[in-house]
Amino acid sequence: MSKLLDNVTAELQRLPGIGRRTALRLAMHILKMESDTVDSLAAAIAHFRHDIRYCRSCNNLSDSDICPICSDTRRDRSTICVVEQVGDLLSIENTSQYHGLYHVLGGVISPMQGIGPSDLKIDLLCDKLLTGDIKEVIIAISTSVEGETTLFYLLNRLKAFPEVKVSTIARGIGFGDELEYVDELTITHALINRRELKP
Amino acid sequence: MSKLLDNVTAELQRLPGIGRRTALRLAMHILKMESDTVDSLAAAIAHFRHDIRYCRSCNNLSDSDICPICSDTRRDRSTICVVEQVGDLLSIENTSQYHGLYHVLGGVISPMQGIGPSDLKIDLLCDKLLTGDIKEVIIAISTSVEGETTLFYLLNRLKAFPEVKVSTIARGIGFGDELEYVDELTITHALINRRELKP
Repeated sequence: MSKLLDNVTAELQRLPGIGRRTALRLAMHILKMESDTVDSLAAAIAHFRHDIRYCRSCNNLSDSDICPICSDTRRDRSTICVVEQVGDLLSIENTSQYHGLYHVLGGVISPMQGIGPSDLKIDLLCDKLLTGDIKEVIIAISTSVEGETTLFYLLNRLKAFPEVKVSTIARGIGFGDELEYVDELTITHALINRRELKP
Repeated sequence: MSKLLDNVTAELQRLPGIGRRTALRLAMHILKMESDTVDSLAAAIAHFRHDIRYCRSCNNLSDSDICPICSDTRRDRSTICVVEQVGDLLSIENTSQYHGLYHVLGGVISPMQGIGPSDLKIDLLCDKLLTGDIKEVIIAISTSVEGETTLFYLLNRLKAFPEVKVSTIARGIGFGDELEYVDELTITHALINRRELKP
């Protein structure tokens, strides 16, 4: 078999959800694509991996030091929505119902995977609260065991800021569902029905 | 939103079966991959598209002018198996039951898609038969309407070579099934039970 074909199918199989047959199907499709289009695809993948940065303020993916959301002066700078990962942020943005800022933790506390609080951007969040500009923190974390652990850890840390209102998005989202894949309507309702917590 | 992320998800969505969410999931996975691994993936895609060639003898994908199967002296050079596309050839190779050569047509006759006999590598096949070295042609084309049309067109062309035995793989394969996705056992039986045709 062709080494080039072997190579491209092996490399494509490194991606999640892509097995041998799907890799082969993608390779055959790549053959039919315009040469320039394939170059754009390959370049986009490499550039994304090399040049992407993390917002110094909220840990969102960004092309520069500060992400477009944090630098958007029209957004409500008194509210921060805390999410696990960038995919969750994008899902909330798609609802067009939230106009505050975000904070991307970069994961949840998971002793099984060796992820502790210090691996998440929690100190960065507390630093922002120290400025006194933040009135509310909305916690939008998955309702998994790890998510609940992270929620309780966060609540404990946020006790240091009694003047900040803390809420979680409503539990309209099924237990075990991944927030990233929930439909916009459910996310909208969960945002509207957020309940205040007394830390 | 980050332009780099926008760009990579838009490019990934050019691939078949990859929508916005899958593209985003792949992008997030790419972020977690080693930088070198991502470079290998991007390079494999570009190299495959630019450097792949078609075997001058059988139209199989190849790294050089003649593919490894055509240049393998251990293979039975008196039998040619005619397939639509490279994926079909690979499926047959996976059975390890066939030791002859191949001929990749590059598609089937489809007036709806504007694909006529001259768009397929049929003349190249006839040129090989002119040498007189070929004793049998096994036609392994999908049992679709286009496949049947191509089969009858081929049988007509092969009438010019009455000394060559012509067979099709057995109709153990469900009508409308894509050969590329059939399991190896079915393909093996279909090869063994091929029926001779009287052109």
